[in-house]
Amino acid sequence: MRIDGVAYRSIWVEPDGHTVGVIDQTRLPHAFVLLNLDSLEAAAHAIRSMQVRGAPLIGAAAAYGVALAMRVDASDRALEAACVTLLATRPTAVNLQWAIARMKAALLAVGPQARVAAAYAEAARICDEDVAINEAIGRHGLPLIAAKAKEMKRATVNVLTHCNAGWLATVDWGTALAPLYMAHDAGIDLHVWVDETRPRNQGAGLTAFELGKHGVPHTVIVDNAGGHLMQHGKVDLCIVGTDRVTRKGDVANKIGTYLKALAARDNGVPFYVALPSTTIDWSIDDGLSEISIEERSEAEVTAISGRDEAGRVVTVTVTPPGARAANFGFDVTPARLVTGLITERGVCAASAEGLAKLFPSEARGARG
Amino acid sequence: MRIDGVAYRSIWVEPDGHTVGVIDQTRLPHAFVLLNLDSLEAAAHAIRSMQVRGAPLIGAAAAYGVALAMRVDASDRALEAACVTLLATRPTAVNLQWAIARMKAALLAVGPQARVAAAYAEAARICDEDVAINEAIGRHGLPLIAAKAKEMKRATVNVLTHCNAGWLATVDWGTALAPLYMAHDAGIDLHVWVDETRPRNQGAGLTAFELGKHGVPHTVIVDNAGGHLMQHGKVDLCIVGTDRVTRKGDVANKIGTYLKALAARDNGVPFYVALPSTTIDWSIDDGLSEISIEERSEAEVTAISGRDEAGRVVTVTVTPPGARAANFGFDVTPARLVTGLITERGVCAASAEGLAKLFPSEARGARG
Repeated sequence: MRIDGVAYRSIWVEPDGHTVGVIDQTRLPHAFVLLNLDSLEAAAHAIRSMQVRGAPLIGAAAAYGVALAMRVDASDRALEAACVTLLATRPTAVNLQWAIARMKAALLAVGPQARVAAAYAEAARICDEDVAINEAIGRHGLPLIAAKAKEMKRATVNVLTHCNAGWLATVDWGTALAPLYMAHDAGIDLHVWVDETRPRNQGAGLTAFELGKHGVPHTVIVDNAGGHLMQHGKVDLCIVGTDRVTRKGDVANKIGTYLKALAARDNGVPFYVALPSTTIDWSIDDGLSEISIEERSEAEVTAISGRDEAGRVVTVTVTPPGARAANFGFDVTPARLVTGLITERGVCAASAEGLAKLFPSEARGARG
Repeated sequence: MRIDGVAYRSIWVEPDGHTVGVIDQTRLPHAFVLLNLDSLEAAAHAIRSMQVRGAPLIGAAAAYGVALAMRVDASDRALEAACVTLLATRPTAVNLQWAIARMKAALLAVGPQARVAAAYAEAARICDEDVAINEAIGRHGLPLIAAKAKEMKRATVNVLTHCNAGWLATVDWGTALAPLYMAHDAGIDLHVWVDETRPRNQGAGLTAFELGKHGVPHTVIVDNAGGHLMQHGKVDLCIVGTDRVTRKGDVANKIGTYLKALAARDNGVPFYVALPSTTIDWSIDDGLSEISIEERSEAEVTAISGRDEAGRVVTVTVTPPGARAANFGFDVTPARLVTGLITERGVCAASAEGLAKLFPSEARGARG
């Protein structure tokens, strides 16, 4: 996608042929700062500190993290250690596990002397595939929006999204936002309600940034507002991304997603989840009991960063001195609240049957 | 209630006998600043700018606003003009209308020369009655928490609340928090999940401040987190306040309340609303179509105030430059999602029948 006319992916190999460029997403929307990841540790830190975030991008960054590790030591032991380090960075997104497993398999298949080149090649494939997958998600999601526009006789289609599942969360295009970019580009009159997505404000910071740069009309709202908007007919469709989907269609996504799904159900608003199939964890059934939910620092709740009047980025504390906070990163939306899953192979019901129709071989390989 | 050992109400007449003291709630929790309201305009500004907020306190502040106006001009015309000015400050809370109507009736019953004294006396009665009413709400709500504690064999009772319906929102005690203060004082093992309540952070700022000063264990969470906590059995009870309740039990309260009520229903968690009967609007049935929802400034969404590292209060912008926001102040929770209403006369079902049992004469006077 483009920023001020320049085409970007969210991750790339620098002209030096080995260091990895990313956009520091902790600095957005206040500053556009590029980072140069030059080691396993730098890649792991970028994932852990959410300089890169979004399930698909985390997978891509971990893949390059393995490649950077191989440059230092391409032994089996170093490969194993790199995988352990990267796996520990974030617990909820399954793409991380998937990308690391794929890198490991590809590199164990060749000798240590061939591993650096193989690692960069495999990481590049992961990235290119992600772009193609997201483009396919966009193509499959677009007709849902087009149909709504037709049903509404071309009035503005209002879509609500939570967190950031745009191109910044993937290598390019995004998952939930891919259909929206395509709808906007196709001339559909579209407006996006952007949940600010506390505590880290990925909606206010990243989704609003992305949509603004692409020219998609949007309005930022507090996470509390979506229910009210749906009660008053101001939301025609919800589309969100996800960090892990179970074999039966339960959806782990940014904390607060479940509340929006409940409101959508209560008001008859379709609630879609967009995902690459790499986000499906075929090994689990029940999202509530089987998905580990990351707990993060209290400071993400008690303090907020933004620009002061002089344009400096300042972090301010919003709670009383000494107040404690809890910070759960994700929640699970049960499959029963999900209208459909938008995948690279098409749209399906959020159920074991729905997923098995689109992904028969993966479903057969799953337990149960 | 007490702050650092000193007993406070949220509004009082100063020793000069006519100016009105309040706590500037826009400065909490960062600074404890008292304001001296010396005119109708100052009172109207305090309500409009939310220096005083909370449905019962808004009513009390408006009553004193009328009294301050009478000191300048006690004519019928000035009384009418003061009422119009005060009514226009906030559209959603019905207590404002109630208090102004009561002041008007009391003052029209006496001649202009008697109105200043009558106004201060009536405003003081409104305040004293509010304190007594909230204490009664606390007494009626306490058994709900005590029963839960007994049912849970004295394990910690976790209560979730949204916004601030504590003593800062009333003249003293609070509505939703009154039962919690009494439960804590009675030795019940209580822990409160405090929704931060974006955009104005009344939970993170005011409720956490109040509970902290009183020593009630509590944890601040983002508004997105309540559903996850309820899914995992970490909430035993929800109690919130309200700005307007219809004859049939629909509840207008701070934006986001509806989402928590949906999650409570989905997880079998009791959802109570605490209110003085002055918050009931007997003239309307349907909250969704008949309650006017205040829209406030975009800046409350795009910018947040807090303390920087040096302890200075700084306002920072969290959205990209030029991003637009929408800011709806309240939402309506349909009566079907409310387990019960806790009033000064007892607990009742959120329905026309439930309310009519406790308030037969008011219900008879209502339309329908």
